[in-house]
Amino acid sequence: MGDSFAPRRSLLTPAPPKPTGGRRAAVEALLDGDRTALDRPGKRRRTSHRRRGQRTERRGNPSGRHPLRLTSVRVLRRLLLKRESAGRLVTVSEIWIGFDADDTLWHNEHYFIQSYALFAELVAPYLEAEHDDAEQAAHDLLVATERRNIPSFGYGIKGATISMIEAAITASHGEIRPEQILRLVDRAKEMMEHPVEFLDGALDTIDALSQHKLVLLTKGDLKDQHRKIEMSNIAERFDAVEIMHEKDGPTYRKAFDRFSIDPVRFVMIGNSVKSDIIPVLELGSAAVHVPYRTTWAIEVAEEPTAHPKFRQASSMHAVPPIVDELLG
Amino acid sequence: MGDSFAPRRSLLTPAPPKPTGGRRAAVEALLDGDRTALDRPGKRRRTSHRRRGQRTERRGNPSGRHPLRLTSVRVLRRLLLKRESAGRLVTVSEIWIGFDADDTLWHNEHYFIQSYALFAELVAPYLEAEHDDAEQAAHDLLVATERRNIPSFGYGIKGATISMIEAAITASHGEIRPEQILRLVDRAKEMMEHPVEFLDGALDTIDALSQHKLVLLTKGDLKDQHRKIEMSNIAERFDAVEIMHEKDGPTYRKAFDRFSIDPVRFVMIGNSVKSDIIPVLELGSAAVHVPYRTTWAIEVAEEPTAHPKFRQASSMHAVPPIVDELLG
Repeated sequence: MGDSFAPRRSLLTPAPPKPTGGRRAAVEALLDGDRTALDRPGKRRRTSHRRRGQRTERRGNPSGRHPLRLTSVRVLRRLLLKRESAGRLVTVSEIWIGFDADDTLWHNEHYFIQSYALFAELVAPYLEAEHDDAEQAAHDLLVATERRNIPSFGYGIKGATISMIEAAITASHGEIRPEQILRLVDRAKEMMEHPVEFLDGALDTIDALSQHKLVLLTKGDLKDQHRKIEMSNIAERFDAVEIMHEKDGPTYRKAFDRFSIDPVRFVMIGNSVKSDIIPVLELGSAAVHVPYRTTWAIEVAEEPTAHPKFRQASSMHAVPPIVDELLG
Repeated sequence: MGDSFAPRRSLLTPAPPKPTGGRRAAVEALLDGDRTALDRPGKRRRTSHRRRGQRTERRGNPSGRHPLRLTSVRVLRRLLLKRESAGRLVTVSEIWIGFDADDTLWHNEHYFIQSYALFAELVAPYLEAEHDDAEQAAHDLLVATERRNIPSFGYGIKGATISMIEAAITASHGEIRPEQILRLVDRAKEMMEHPVEFLDGALDTIDALSQHKLVLLTKGDLKDQHRKIEMSNIAERFDAVEIMHEKDGPTYRKAFDRFSIDPVRFVMIGNSVKSDIIPVLELGSAAVHVPYRTTWAIEVAEEPTAHPKFRQASSMHAVPPIVDELLG
């Protein structure tokens, strides 16, 4: 049943690449044996400059069109090698880089922690008779309720809010007052309006990897994710955006099908070992874990440190060289 | 800001059509001037037979592959005309038919009405002192709360549940008991598990229009919509599926871009004048309104009866000939 979501015919194939004049000329020069094209210092400097300057350039480009991009030296080399080894040009599928959004590109858990604190403040007084650490007890009870409710409600603010209301009523043995429940409802509305704050280095890392195809793969409440995607203007930096209801093997496979992504030429970057790392490693992709300062209890999982395609990055700034190394 | 969700480059173009042997032969015969191909009674009978028998055939086809389909007589005629008028073959963009899901393909409002009834039962006692018709007053209060909260919470069961909890607390002036609120939470969980029941004629209508490209355009809670799409196995009958967070001009335009749909060659079928009809008419598409037996207060809008591309159908059974007539 899980597979039935795939459209009956595969219609979504990437448009054929439209090489720019410069790119086409460079490829043709290479195919004609002009290997010096690979090492022209001017080209290299221009590429580096573009990477550093891109964010500003895009902001200052009201037409929405993007500057011409040069095929990376690595990609040209690969095209050349393919031609040499096979005797004719072989099409190589493109490299895709996937980015998680919540707590990878922008802060999210941060806002949930404030909601959890409000919950604990409201509920702990009802637990003091039974528990030494009533706030911790309230927190544990909420996590247990959320974990039980995810199969029904999925991920995101609204499901979390209903779980908070349920946990507040059960934890207080029905003693919680309706106006306290209303504070949880008001908090949900605040959450649905919080500003988008990028993590340090997130935009620079996206731009540094923009010679590849980029896909945003995010999970959570549809309304909230759309809001954050629109507020952040992030979609213009990506080739594709997908809001997933779950992040596991079958849902990643569907996203790969939808965008014609070859799993072995895909690298996922995200903060959740459970949602961003393990499922893609199992599909043959590579994955870079960038831990957020806190992890939601339900997303905690052990890092697969021994996996040859797994890497850890201390921050988003550290990601681009790690991706380059993974791609060889 | 609303436009920023479009990916920076348009990658999603439909795959080139792969004509079957029979279709290719028929097209070639037509282009060679063999107009009799249009009127071969055997072909026509086979087409009619396929339409009637298709649902059963697909169910009995465990490979998941679909029987060969004949290009409709209308499409062949159009190809021929294009060639004759221009002196050479012109590519004609494909016709797409869009289907809403909730209350168009399967029952939905039905379950919400049961939730509303539970809400009224719980809240009316607190309103009896002030209102002659306390149940109606409870209902009106809930609709007002939902309407106010949609900009924050969007559409679907979870947002509706939080609105019910808020309305129950405010309507009762904080007198509602926590265990009554818990009944609304339990009802939300029931809602998130209700079975998918197709409307009469829905599957036959999808199959009768399957010579066109078909797209499912649904709105609501991401988790709930995915669940219903998977439970119903409906995706195998569609070329594309999109869960929208809102159904208005900008969101339809994005869906059209995503699937390379030409608005003037698109017909939308749905039960909501506000969400399925008016926005697509404004984009130049055609629309068929199939009213459900009840309409959520927030979706009520006046039918644009004077619009030349608007049609009403009394049930899903009546839709295919209306679409044929619209397509001329």
